[in-house]
Amino acid sequence: MLQGQQSWIFANRPVLLATAVAGGPFEARSAIAADFDILHDDIWLGQSSFEKAEKKLLEEACQTSIQKAGLQKEDIQFFFSGDLMNQIISSSFAARTLGIPYFGLFGACSSSMEGLALAAFVVNAGGARYALTACSSHNGSVNKQYRYPTEYGAQLPPTAQWTVTGAGAAVVAAQGVGPRVIGATIGRVIDLGVTDPFNMGAAMAPAAVDTIIAHFRDFNLDASHYDLIATGDLGKVGHAIAADLLRRQGIVIPENIFTDCGVLIYQGQQQVMSGGSGCACSAVVTYGHFFNRMLKGELKRVLIVATGALLSPLSYQQNESIPCVAHAVALEWEGV
Amino acid sequence: MLQGQQSWIFANRPVLLATAVAGGPFEARSAIAADFDILHDDIWLGQSSFEKAEKKLLEEACQTSIQKAGLQKEDIQFFFSGDLMNQIISSSFAARTLGIPYFGLFGACSSSMEGLALAAFVVNAGGARYALTACSSHNGSVNKQYRYPTEYGAQLPPTAQWTVTGAGAAVVAAQGVGPRVIGATIGRVIDLGVTDPFNMGAAMAPAAVDTIIAHFRDFNLDASHYDLIATGDLGKVGHAIAADLLRRQGIVIPENIFTDCGVLIYQGQQQVMSGGSGCACSAVVTYGHFFNRMLKGELKRVLIVATGALLSPLSYQQNESIPCVAHAVALEWEGV
Repeated sequence: MLQGQQSWIFANRPVLLATAVAGGPFEARSAIAADFDILHDDIWLGQSSFEKAEKKLLEEACQTSIQKAGLQKEDIQFFFSGDLMNQIISSSFAARTLGIPYFGLFGACSSSMEGLALAAFVVNAGGARYALTACSSHNGSVNKQYRYPTEYGAQLPPTAQWTVTGAGAAVVAAQGVGPRVIGATIGRVIDLGVTDPFNMGAAMAPAAVDTIIAHFRDFNLDASHYDLIATGDLGKVGHAIAADLLRRQGIVIPENIFTDCGVLIYQGQQQVMSGGSGCACSAVVTYGHFFNRMLKGELKRVLIVATGALLSPLSYQQNESIPCVAHAVALEWEGV
Repeated sequence: MLQGQQSWIFANRPVLLATAVAGGPFEARSAIAADFDILHDDIWLGQSSFEKAEKKLLEEACQTSIQKAGLQKEDIQFFFSGDLMNQIISSSFAARTLGIPYFGLFGACSSSMEGLALAAFVVNAGGARYALTACSSHNGSVNKQYRYPTEYGAQLPPTAQWTVTGAGAAVVAAQGVGPRVIGATIGRVIDLGVTDPFNMGAAMAPAAVDTIIAHFRDFNLDASHYDLIATGDLGKVGHAIAADLLRRQGIVIPENIFTDCGVLIYQGQQQVMSGGSGCACSAVVTYGHFFNRMLKGELKRVLIVATGALLSPLSYQQNESIPCVAHAVALEWEGV
């Protein structure tokens, strides 16, 4: 149901029945390593290309989440998935493996919450008993496509971010026990003219702010409603800009509430410049770390604001600036 | 509401309140030229790149459809759009221009009906008063990206197809007068091992057949229910294969009912090999030609089965076959 101008409220409170997250060797040393279901010590996953490795991560996360939900893939009506590859081949090839009727999405790194918002809307309205939503990224495949192959060892500025190698998946159900999907706010595309593809955080921060303000307006809430408000992958640089832009609008979200998946994911000694990024960043932190913290009762109400930079290498070459979007999904854990 | 295994039935019968289609100079000579709202005699649309020209076509179709619906862009809650460009830049940059909360989609040439199915689902369930859905492709930008730049003049086999330069957009509304969106069937990814990117019709035909069979099963219908069943862009080669595959399953759709947007769009003297293709193919034929025929009372019940080849140039280079998908949307015109 439409709530305000650009939000949905889910009266039937669809359930995140099960989630699963998979990661690579760098993620095995991350701050949230314990939250992964599957960790690989081979970044190739035994595959012949980084792209095939990414597809395998996505398939593993999907298959594991279905298994954890106690379901078969035939029980699931629809699969909503996106990634950063050209023509989202990771998602489409995983959809071929799964055989579940498939909606391909592209919202760059906002795809995680674009998928969850749509899956929850469909389940809430009786359009599916079970829907699967997922996202993936791979440091090797994404850097090769958007910037330089990692093997070139190109020096990066401190504003750059480290693409997460991983995948996260969630089974959304009409009934069951788990965190509930309460509502979603769908973002407008915002572009304040940033053109530097090594400073995605600064480019995406205004989109995150626009969506957070819209969310508070549409639901008539303020930040105190939430135990945690996490942007997707702004990194340290972008997150500080977002906090500053909010402050200028008179919105101060306390530091213990306002965080960023790209800031949280890696640890001090991991050299990730401004932080983590990639579709998998918000997906693995949300479906792994936050999901587990909700189940433990540490978090009750969480707002995930996944951010996406909607550029392509070609739009950059044609001197375009970077249009960005952010989609927010509100989760609530009521206990068993 | 879920109907059968992979379909939705829209009890509130959302309305296609207005549509608009834009095209280039080749489309101005097509069989359906009279159905275009906007036709350009400059394939560049005065822009500095084919990609920018494609974005402009998409913006024009969107803006014109909103205008024809008697609305302002602020009246529209959500914009569902997809295209064939890497990172769907046509859609994302058009979304920046429009400023409407945005869902980026990628289903290759099935994006037209992926978008319409989602827009209609959301409007039907009260998630929006108005939703906009659109699609675009451009012969210059798409060939450059997937195959060879058109200017190379590479010789093409008879199974190849001609990418439509155009865009189609539709405003879906909870109330009003226009063809109604009755239901949708969402496709599974089907891949029978075709690896030739110059024979998309053969690759996509099995996906179209799978979705048509699922549609008949889920709605307990047969072909006689429809005045027209149109696949998206199988072309002559793919359409004949689809008819043959259906026949082997005991389903014979009469030739006066079963057609293909890629076969219909161009005229005899236009050298398009097997037919038209591209996201705009099913979008301009549906939102232009079929929409107008419905308004004239010539067609009452129409099923559009948009087909998409989910390959990327890179997946082809890595020796992958071509996964395909088809989404079907049923339209009905009840008269004024």
